[in-house]
Amino acid sequence: MTRIRFHRSLDDLKEKLLVMAGMAEQSIQRAVEAYRTRDLSICDLVDRGELAINRFEREVDQMALDLLAMEQPMAIDLRFILAVIKINADLERVGDSATGISDRVRELEAFPMADLPVDTPKLASLATGMVRKALQAFIEADAAMAESVLSMDDNVDKLNETAYFTLLNVMKDQPHLAPQALAAVMISRSLERVADHATNIAEDVIFWVRGADVRHHMSVSEIHPA
Amino acid sequence: MTRIRFHRSLDDLKEKLLVMAGMAEQSIQRAVEAYRTRDLSICDLVDRGELAINRFEREVDQMALDLLAMEQPMAIDLRFILAVIKINADLERVGDSATGISDRVRELEAFPMADLPVDTPKLASLATGMVRKALQAFIEADAAMAESVLSMDDNVDKLNETAYFTLLNVMKDQPHLAPQALAAVMISRSLERVADHATNIAEDVIFWVRGADVRHHMSVSEIHPA
Repeated sequence: MTRIRFHRSLDDLKEKLLVMAGMAEQSIQRAVEAYRTRDLSICDLVDRGELAINRFEREVDQMALDLLAMEQPMAIDLRFILAVIKINADLERVGDSATGISDRVRELEAFPMADLPVDTPKLASLATGMVRKALQAFIEADAAMAESVLSMDDNVDKLNETAYFTLLNVMKDQPHLAPQALAAVMISRSLERVADHATNIAEDVIFWVRGADVRHHMSVSEIHPA
Repeated sequence: MTRIRFHRSLDDLKEKLLVMAGMAEQSIQRAVEAYRTRDLSICDLVDRGELAINRFEREVDQMALDLLAMEQPMAIDLRFILAVIKINADLERVGDSATGISDRVRELEAFPMADLPVDTPKLASLATGMVRKALQAFIEADAAMAESVLSMDDNVDKLNETAYFTLLNVMKDQPHLAPQALAAVMISRSLERVADHATNIAEDVIFWVRGADVRHHMSVSEIHPA
């Protein structure tokens, strides 16, 4: 394989990872929409999407592995491929979180809707926003942007902690709402995990980009022009 | 680097990953002991351990990266190194689960001990047992053993689901115990995640070992003698 073809393959790998990220993000959006509307047909979509995500994860891994095997990559490319492998694993687990939410929605079918004093869609939108930003930092090889994702995580942690104690009070004061409140705690926690995955992705981007800086003493845009 | 030195380095990498696994397992055991005894000094140990685990994770990653960069590894070694990188990430997150449990124990300080009808230490012992078995499958390159870890996960999922609904009933019937019951749900969930990480590790072992089989048409023990 020529150097040029190798770099084209790296671009293909990046492209494929972005598709994977889109699938993961969509699965969370769908799961939260299923929760908001209690629409079990959306849960079915989430579950089918999960299978597709798992398949896609293996394809990305195999592609990365083939690139490592075919060529002796330079240090910078090696770090890039490893970042892809790690980000891929995190995106797959974002899909798992979506399935976890979807499972809770199915359980809630037996209970009436409850108006709980927590803003789950806001938490979902913050968490998926972090995933999106971490992936954007990856595309643009922008360590500063990746670092901004890390600081966003504090907000999500705080929102999740607030939801936890708010819902605990609901359980204490209105025990008949315990099933709905407990499900809401678990869903908040799943969304906080999505934010954790975004944080992991951001850290991988920093590892990759900084490694490039340290090893090459040149800007990343010179190494991987957009 | 000679081939022999390269293989000695692979052994060093494996050795280091096993130390990492021991740290992760210990952190879970400590966190559950802190929960059982409500001893916050053990929580401090868990938190300090978490810092050590994070440091160690980076060392393992760097060692794996150096091996990939220095040598053009054969396909079988490549898959091994990638498995190490992925297992390493899972072990670090086992450490995160321990910290999550430790955080809940700190919150519980404000509440009296409650005798809840769930066996958290049993769940913990099943989950850490899975991690240990997945690592053993890794050491012995034993895909069948790795597969037995996957089937153990069903038990953990069932125990966790049972704990969920049992504790939900506690919340409904004894709302004054809601804080303790909710913490117990979260801790069960953390332990179920530990089992999920063990499952991921087992899948990585299967990926590595099966890849060896497929590509070399010889038994793994011939490739990597114990």
